[in-house]
Amino acid sequence: MEGLVLAADLGGTNLRMAAVDHGGSFSHLIKRRVPPNVSPPELIELIRTLAAEISASPRALAFTAPAPVPFDFDGVLTKLPNLSSVTGMNLKRALEDEFGLPVVIENDATAAAIGETWIGASRGISNSITVTLGTGIGGGIIIDGKPHRGPDGIGGEIGHITVEPNGRRCKCGSIGCVEEYASATAIARIAQEHGMKTRDSAEVYAAWMGGDATAAIVFTEMGRYLGIMLASLANAINPEMLVICGGASAAWEAFAPSTQAEISSRAYPRAASRARLVKGILGDNAGLLGVARSAFLELAGERV
Amino acid sequence: MEGLVLAADLGGTNLRMAAVDHGGSFSHLIKRRVPPNVSPPELIELIRTLAAEISASPRALAFTAPAPVPFDFDGVLTKLPNLSSVTGMNLKRALEDEFGLPVVIENDATAAAIGETWIGASRGISNSITVTLGTGIGGGIIIDGKPHRGPDGIGGEIGHITVEPNGRRCKCGSIGCVEEYASATAIARIAQEHGMKTRDSAEVYAAWMGGDATAAIVFTEMGRYLGIMLASLANAINPEMLVICGGASAAWEAFAPSTQAEISSRAYPRAASRARLVKGILGDNAGLLGVARSAFLELAGERV
Repeated sequence: MEGLVLAADLGGTNLRMAAVDHGGSFSHLIKRRVPPNVSPPELIELIRTLAAEISASPRALAFTAPAPVPFDFDGVLTKLPNLSSVTGMNLKRALEDEFGLPVVIENDATAAAIGETWIGASRGISNSITVTLGTGIGGGIIIDGKPHRGPDGIGGEIGHITVEPNGRRCKCGSIGCVEEYASATAIARIAQEHGMKTRDSAEVYAAWMGGDATAAIVFTEMGRYLGIMLASLANAINPEMLVICGGASAAWEAFAPSTQAEISSRAYPRAASRARLVKGILGDNAGLLGVARSAFLELAGERV
Repeated sequence: MEGLVLAADLGGTNLRMAAVDHGGSFSHLIKRRVPPNVSPPELIELIRTLAAEISASPRALAFTAPAPVPFDFDGVLTKLPNLSSVTGMNLKRALEDEFGLPVVIENDATAAAIGETWIGASRGISNSITVTLGTGIGGGIIIDGKPHRGPDGIGGEIGHITVEPNGRRCKCGSIGCVEEYASATAIARIAQEHGMKTRDSAEVYAAWMGGDATAAIVFTEMGRYLGIMLASLANAINPEMLVICGGASAAWEAFAPSTQAEISSRAYPRAASRARLVKGILGDNAGLLGVARSAFLELAGERV
């Protein structure tokens, strides 16, 4: 399988694009801000501009989206809290019309799981759960080597597992979701509740790096909730690996010991020791690479 | 695929056995008490006696066990809280030696999920979660039509999903497992905490049937916790159906409305409406029939 795929990570804030080859090497990685309230034609125009800059001759387009993507996805973007201005747009058809090429779309967290399983931390692992810690918490579940998307593309929405039954109201409508306790947003909130004057999780991590005792308490609390959720999944799904990705995974050293302790004390001993907790190694590129992988498999007629 | 399978449900209290045909019809169902602290030779002798009573000419033996059963199960029973006297026994080899026939063993809750998917409530459904509500809570997860056993046979241990992070100590070693809040054991305990003079969940259900207001509170509380766990799984796995089996499912009318309300208010709307909550229809025979199905698939070289 030769040739290139034009792969893009479409988020609420940025559009990142690169040309990816069949081995996962990429070139011409560029990033552009997605304008607030971007309209569908403006989004396509932005994509066209970046594609022209990359100037590759791709065999397919591969896009992540912050939206549910079932296996038989028709291309219509729905449930886009961070990109609501393009709700209802058929991204797949618009890209096919614009570029005259096959288009593959994956949910961003599912794509990250595919990427890490392709050439990242969980390479060669058949059963894993990838967690994306960002503004929210997403996830991708790989079972028998295949991403589990579910009939509505909601498979892997582990950020909305309950960890405090009478806890904080989540923007999803539920109460006590782990996203409210272990996302980058939650790290900043917990820090503020502990009196820290920080605006985001990166600042809390910087404080932790500097030996701040309060920051240590914040990450212990956040890591514990992440561990409660992962212990539940270790028992329910018995994965071989738990891969932590996303922006807040930069603070890995700060929260991972607490997360691991919680998994070890809560999950069945065999489930806990089987589910190796690791940090993702593809960083921001996990999703972009993962959806490129899906596109290569689609071109080869092997996508699952 | 003609012929019969001799199928058995091996529990901590009873051994139930029947001859099952390839369509799921069964005959000669018999039940015998498993003696406390049964030894491996005594267990084989009990099985031999029941098999002789059934007097079929089976093509294979199919056994459920209250133990983890990974896909490449070697037959050794481990982690048997309710049948600890046979821990370490190789049940598969012992039965092969005794009967000279192929032997298939499944975890009891996994078998119930296979049974309900074969000829029960989730017949023809590719993605489902079956919950067995008994002394404890077990589960079986069917993904793309296949039972998800996991590398250690722990896949489906949904009874040990955390629903109260600082809650009751569970006998598994964790804290706040749903098994402590929604099993038959939990129903009796919650009832006693509310001042009811009941020994078991069946009595609480009898009181509910008689219009007892306290029993209604008990089942609302128990059903709510079951719903919290299932809402988490509806988001994480996006199943098409949630099947409630096991002894305590007899109280379905008492707790199901509370469970459904919790799923509807917590899970993503699409995940909640997709995951149809139903009562199993095979009753006590779900596991026995499910493992018989596995044996027929094994004989046909199609077991997954």
